[in-house]
Amino acid sequence: MELEKENGGKPSAERWHFGHNKAAAAAGNRSIRGTLSKVIASVEETGPRPLIQLGHGDPSPFPSFRTTPIAEDAIVEAVKSAQFNHYSPSHGLLPARRAVAEYLSKDIPYKLSSDDVFLTAGCAQAIDIVIAALARPDANILLPRPGFPLYEARCTFYNVEMRRFDLIPEQGWELDLDQVEKLTDENTVAIVLINPNNPSGSVLKYQHMEEIAKTARKLGIMVISDEAYGHLTFGSNPFIPMGVFGDVVPVLTLGSISKRWVVPGWRLGWIAMTDPKGILSETKVVDSIRSILDITINPVTFIQGAMPQIIEKTKDDFFNNIIHMLRGAAELCYNKIKDIKCITCPHKPEGSMFVMVKLNLSYLVDISDDVDFCLKLAKEETVIICPGSVLEMKNWLRITFAIEPASLEVGLERLKLFCERHEKN
Amino acid sequence: MELEKENGGKPSAERWHFGHNKAAAAAGNRSIRGTLSKVIASVEETGPRPLIQLGHGDPSPFPSFRTTPIAEDAIVEAVKSAQFNHYSPSHGLLPARRAVAEYLSKDIPYKLSSDDVFLTAGCAQAIDIVIAALARPDANILLPRPGFPLYEARCTFYNVEMRRFDLIPEQGWELDLDQVEKLTDENTVAIVLINPNNPSGSVLKYQHMEEIAKTARKLGIMVISDEAYGHLTFGSNPFIPMGVFGDVVPVLTLGSISKRWVVPGWRLGWIAMTDPKGILSETKVVDSIRSILDITINPVTFIQGAMPQIIEKTKDDFFNNIIHMLRGAAELCYNKIKDIKCITCPHKPEGSMFVMVKLNLSYLVDISDDVDFCLKLAKEETVIICPGSVLEMKNWLRITFAIEPASLEVGLERLKLFCERHEKN
Repeated sequence: MELEKENGGKPSAERWHFGHNKAAAAAGNRSIRGTLSKVIASVEETGPRPLIQLGHGDPSPFPSFRTTPIAEDAIVEAVKSAQFNHYSPSHGLLPARRAVAEYLSKDIPYKLSSDDVFLTAGCAQAIDIVIAALARPDANILLPRPGFPLYEARCTFYNVEMRRFDLIPEQGWELDLDQVEKLTDENTVAIVLINPNNPSGSVLKYQHMEEIAKTARKLGIMVISDEAYGHLTFGSNPFIPMGVFGDVVPVLTLGSISKRWVVPGWRLGWIAMTDPKGILSETKVVDSIRSILDITINPVTFIQGAMPQIIEKTKDDFFNNIIHMLRGAAELCYNKIKDIKCITCPHKPEGSMFVMVKLNLSYLVDISDDVDFCLKLAKEETVIICPGSVLEMKNWLRITFAIEPASLEVGLERLKLFCERHEKN
Repeated sequence: MELEKENGGKPSAERWHFGHNKAAAAAGNRSIRGTLSKVIASVEETGPRPLIQLGHGDPSPFPSFRTTPIAEDAIVEAVKSAQFNHYSPSHGLLPARRAVAEYLSKDIPYKLSSDDVFLTAGCAQAIDIVIAALARPDANILLPRPGFPLYEARCTFYNVEMRRFDLIPEQGWELDLDQVEKLTDENTVAIVLINPNNPSGSVLKYQHMEEIAKTARKLGIMVISDEAYGHLTFGSNPFIPMGVFGDVVPVLTLGSISKRWVVPGWRLGWIAMTDPKGILSETKVVDSIRSILDITINPVTFIQGAMPQIIEKTKDDFFNNIIHMLRGAAELCYNKIKDIKCITCPHKPEGSMFVMVKLNLSYLVDISDDVDFCLKLAKEETVIICPGSVLEMKNWLRITFAIEPASLEVGLERLKLFCERHEKN
């Protein structure tokens, strides 16, 4: 809109009562999106070189990662039926909730019912709702470092204290449970796990998960298990849902079809409760989730309408091919990084779409930190990488390998050239 | 999920730190959904009589209100293209924002640009974001009575004080601007208008809107104009967007395709700024909105991808037919209500999908209030109506007439029989 001028060209804000909301700004500052858009803004227009996006986990634009036609057809059929143009019920359409319950029940020793599942507009909204539901005064939540900034953004937004436990790179990014115990007090309500892990690419082992569950039970806190990358594993550790330990500790599992079906723009996720002892119900956490769902928007109804078909009819071939693509890309990425002196990878990725690497500034002449590295890399090489700072890991980098292999190779080559150019002789 | 038993059959909550969130419950209690589900739960299974839903504004399941094939085809094309499976940018896809800007610019003396438009997951999410953006400590917002409970739910959730101004039934539901002035202090940041009005069915006149704009300017508050029912007018007052007065006072217009295209389940809405003096930018309200969008989920990307086609290609015939249907239904509803002794309608509806009617309890023998009326009506006649209490209007009722005409006639006939049965001799 073209601006009109008044008061000699300078409009006056003094007479208006509304203004800036600092809490919103603080929450917004904790977003990968905000950070990456600053990095992208640093790209210099240097001709026809295409931007290579190794900054976020969204391979959907690449032909090799196109979703299955079964999912597309299910959507088309739902739209054409005109049976799903209406508002969604607060918890989601029953057949879709049932389909998700059955899908999740395959991998745990319990049978979830549709009542154990709430549909959400992607895993991001699941995070929003769960943090809001737990945000009673003085509550604190244990978050992993490195982490996923949306948890921090929502904790900031809802004024929930965050306490960070470290994932130990030298131990395959496992948790230090002594540290977890020390961080916990009577106001600690939950511990957040992200498995398969974004950003480290690690996958939790059964025995370690059992220890986590027992520790959480001892401490009186629930487990929020973010399984957005569920089933996307390609190393020696298989994916094990945290719900397996639902009889030890109540588990809220957050998930979506965004990553496994490569459709993050479809915004279909869930909150699932594995809680055979009924503790979430007894403590009224479920009531809080329901209250928030009553005032919150739901996933698009026709996408919910398509969910039973998407879940039941997708062929293993499709999933296997995605795993194959990711395994190859992770391998390529890991090997390329080995050749770069100033970057080291403590643990070969075996799940998710990311790897976390350490920047050794002492090898570089004119790079002050990870943010500076990413800004200059974007400017000089049109390659986008997420600085570790936004994940609370200064001087680390998060690299996604989930892009078209040819582009990944070019991107990593440019990264290498950039590093060589800035390395000390 | 089947519950396991422990501790002699009674699980113990004491050792768990998490629990009920009272603030979430308070917000959830202020929802039409929550209230209507209680009313629906009162329906007695009395055989094959179908439930007649006059409780909410969603005619999409009825054949006469089916959306245009142009909109369905645009979605199908977008899904099939596989170009829109990716995450949406925070503010929405540029072509979709541009299409909405052009759509809104047709009816106001300003040319909005794509930068003036933020896409949201329906108007409900637009309300959420705008209230959150204005929720600085001590802020208060002026809300209409009767109102739309989602504003109250979000103000409760974000701890924003609500001050209610009355819409005067005897004056065609216009505002009392003296009351608005008296309610305002230096912490009042905005006044919310809903036009065409849900729940009263009234439509604001140009001159009254101009007075509102001048009053808001004098008071230093912005106008939030909820135009979810924009263009759905069928009386003597045409729909005038509040943005017409953007040079008098900054206007945030909230809207969506949910009602005009009859697709509330598609979750595509917007926040548009008509602010030719740049006051929302100068006061950083825009920054707050952007910060919140950076951590919030967006509308489904392929629906955004379809938006330019939906907006540009929908034929006037479709819109005219919907108006024709609503006009006939409103007429039918108004005339039927005239025949019911204990209910009076102060103002014939001329817009939206609702009418607000007053319950005269003195004519009834065994009805204690509006909620009791609605619960018994549901139980005895399988007809759902929204009690006025949830809209802050005790002993009023909100009736939607936007359903298939044959069902509307049956529903109103049952309402009449119910009233006659409970009226004093």
